[in-house]
Amino acid sequence: MNATHAELRQFPVQDDCLQIAGIALTRLAERVGQTPFYAYERKHIQSRVAALRQMLPARVHVHYAIKANPMPALVQMMAPLVDGFDVASSGELKTALDAGMAPSHISFAGPGKRDTELRSAVAAGVLLHLESEQEMERAAHIGEALGMTPRAAIRVNPEFELKHAGMKMGGGARQFGVDAQRVPAMLRKMASLGLDFQGFHLFCGAQNLSASAICEAQRLCVQLSLQLAECAPSPMRMLNIGGGFGVPYFPGERALDLAAVAEGLHTAAQLLCSTSPQTQLVLELGRYLVAEGGIYVCRVQERKFSHGQVFLITDGGLHHHLAASGNFGQVLRKNYPVAIGNRMRAGPREMATVVGPLCTPLDVLAEHIELARAMPGDLVVVFQSGAYGLTASPIAFLGHPPPLEVLV
Amino acid sequence: MNATHAELRQFPVQDDCLQIAGIALTRLAERVGQTPFYAYERKHIQSRVAALRQMLPARVHVHYAIKANPMPALVQMMAPLVDGFDVASSGELKTALDAGMAPSHISFAGPGKRDTELRSAVAAGVLLHLESEQEMERAAHIGEALGMTPRAAIRVNPEFELKHAGMKMGGGARQFGVDAQRVPAMLRKMASLGLDFQGFHLFCGAQNLSASAICEAQRLCVQLSLQLAECAPSPMRMLNIGGGFGVPYFPGERALDLAAVAEGLHTAAQLLCSTSPQTQLVLELGRYLVAEGGIYVCRVQERKFSHGQVFLITDGGLHHHLAASGNFGQVLRKNYPVAIGNRMRAGPREMATVVGPLCTPLDVLAEHIELARAMPGDLVVVFQSGAYGLTASPIAFLGHPPPLEVLV
Repeated sequence: MNATHAELRQFPVQDDCLQIAGIALTRLAERVGQTPFYAYERKHIQSRVAALRQMLPARVHVHYAIKANPMPALVQMMAPLVDGFDVASSGELKTALDAGMAPSHISFAGPGKRDTELRSAVAAGVLLHLESEQEMERAAHIGEALGMTPRAAIRVNPEFELKHAGMKMGGGARQFGVDAQRVPAMLRKMASLGLDFQGFHLFCGAQNLSASAICEAQRLCVQLSLQLAECAPSPMRMLNIGGGFGVPYFPGERALDLAAVAEGLHTAAQLLCSTSPQTQLVLELGRYLVAEGGIYVCRVQERKFSHGQVFLITDGGLHHHLAASGNFGQVLRKNYPVAIGNRMRAGPREMATVVGPLCTPLDVLAEHIELARAMPGDLVVVFQSGAYGLTASPIAFLGHPPPLEVLV
Repeated sequence: MNATHAELRQFPVQDDCLQIAGIALTRLAERVGQTPFYAYERKHIQSRVAALRQMLPARVHVHYAIKANPMPALVQMMAPLVDGFDVASSGELKTALDAGMAPSHISFAGPGKRDTELRSAVAAGVLLHLESEQEMERAAHIGEALGMTPRAAIRVNPEFELKHAGMKMGGGARQFGVDAQRVPAMLRKMASLGLDFQGFHLFCGAQNLSASAICEAQRLCVQLSLQLAECAPSPMRMLNIGGGFGVPYFPGERALDLAAVAEGLHTAAQLLCSTSPQTQLVLELGRYLVAEGGIYVCRVQERKFSHGQVFLITDGGLHHHLAASGNFGQVLRKNYPVAIGNRMRAGPREMATVVGPLCTPLDVLAEHIELARAMPGDLVVVFQSGAYGLTASPIAFLGHPPPLEVLV
């Protein structure tokens, strides 16, 4: 049996048409006024955060990593739902502050922070996740210049790797964080530089669908932070253990077992609390909160036949959704879950390839996939598109108009 | 012996610093006023076009495919150098017309032309490369509505494939063009629809470094067009055989043997001329004209060590130059040619990995490459970056400021 996509139940179907926030997709397309567009459902994202909070230990804070989807309206909606934001640039810092998040609940990570970025972060009073000794020195210098005490945590590159991660971000030689064995010396230096030590940031990898691997990494992160905290100039007030919770994109992938992750997190939180009760445990999630609540929608322009195969030529493509085209971190191209949004169940089905308008063979949204038999005007939906969609795509490529984004 | 990058001789070195258009890179960076930036050298691009024209048969027209680099100043410079432009969207059509190219020398190709695009193309009087029977019907309909006769060529999907192409765009089931065996019927229909038949467009594949493969494909294209022209409603006035000339990006790749390509093209042009003397042969080139005259420049923010390896953290990365990060059509990541632009020859060398500021392990500009030992403030140059650079990149990713482009 061929591997299949995990069943998607987040959007109901009525009269054969997908419903987003209770609105038929065909009507939503009219309301948006154009295709292609991204639509993110408030209710789904709110429910996802609520479900997560219900399962997690109450004392664990949940942060939203804006990089996953920085649409201002979405970030604004997220602000009261989560305990903080993580930002990765000055641009994201502005979005976070504009959304009304208190600076004390914003953290700033990233291996290449420029002086201008450090300066605005220190001026704003957000928490710096220091990625190197040099960055610490630069931050201290900027703090002096501004007459402010930068709040700082150290991002640690641990010895261990996160198993089954879609993207590894720790273990071995990495551009992220400070190798664990150098952290004690850095902590001693930090005291002399007059920075306000807050704690540690450990993030091993992204897009992980294995609960046991996540639990193991979280346990190791807590243990390592407790060891490192012994060298700290002041108590560890915060431990950010990242996130990395994956969502199923490709055939054969299944949803993360959140109950199992929560159970592991209870254990990790207890371990932390018993040794270091003053430490706030922070989980930082991006993709897991927003990916499944979002879709990308484009319109079939033409049914085309070539050598016996059906091509659905759409007005959307890789310039709007690079990840779905298989050109963002995938080695072998696999299909995202795709459907004809106004022909969800009825009518004949066929094998088809969905492509965009670009003059490149890379512009494929789905290859040899079973779909309802579609006609020009029909709406192609790419699911699991709420994270790393629009902003991770080369929208200027070939000079086509950009898609819109709506939060419904 | 390990494969090496082809030697790059387009930019001289003076006082250990790369010179672009006679300007030291360090000074150019000051003049631009920021890093990162793309710089394209007028002289190199002009020389490339001149060299090509000198070697090619005089009667072959050279078109510039704007998609390779649509920077307005560059397109403007190109207008008087080439015989025409090819565009792939309404956006590119606007750029072409703004640059002063006569509509009669502009062609518009692309598998998903929207009605609004067809309408503006017909209104402008440019040549449509029809990619399907339905598109022909839509174009005819729009012509009627506007009271104009659309000028049209048929893009043909030939039976043969282009060997050694980096990206195949013909042969087998494709979204591009019309399967060759259906073209005769389409030509008969075209007459009845009142379109002004101009000829054919055949394009088999891009980024090819094999002269013999290109010559063979061009010969086959001419033969096929002559066969198909027998069914045409009027003489074939134009044959666009695409381009697909590659440039060496990766270790082991060597420059295309242009003399061999030119020789093959002489033969192909003679074959065409002897049977169909009224047919203008058109070569459409993008990458080959502009890739090697362009560089991407970013600045080292930090030298970082992790587990014995050197990482150069720069202010540029995948968000500006997706192809160099290995995420644009590559299956296995390979390094573009990269150098420290202000330490071209002197000083110690080392193995280093060049990364950007993004919080993703995909953000790598060069991995384990031998470079001059660089310090913060030094300039990293990614060569062969004049085509499919900025516009093929997700510039909004993580909210960093965009790079600038300069034509010098």
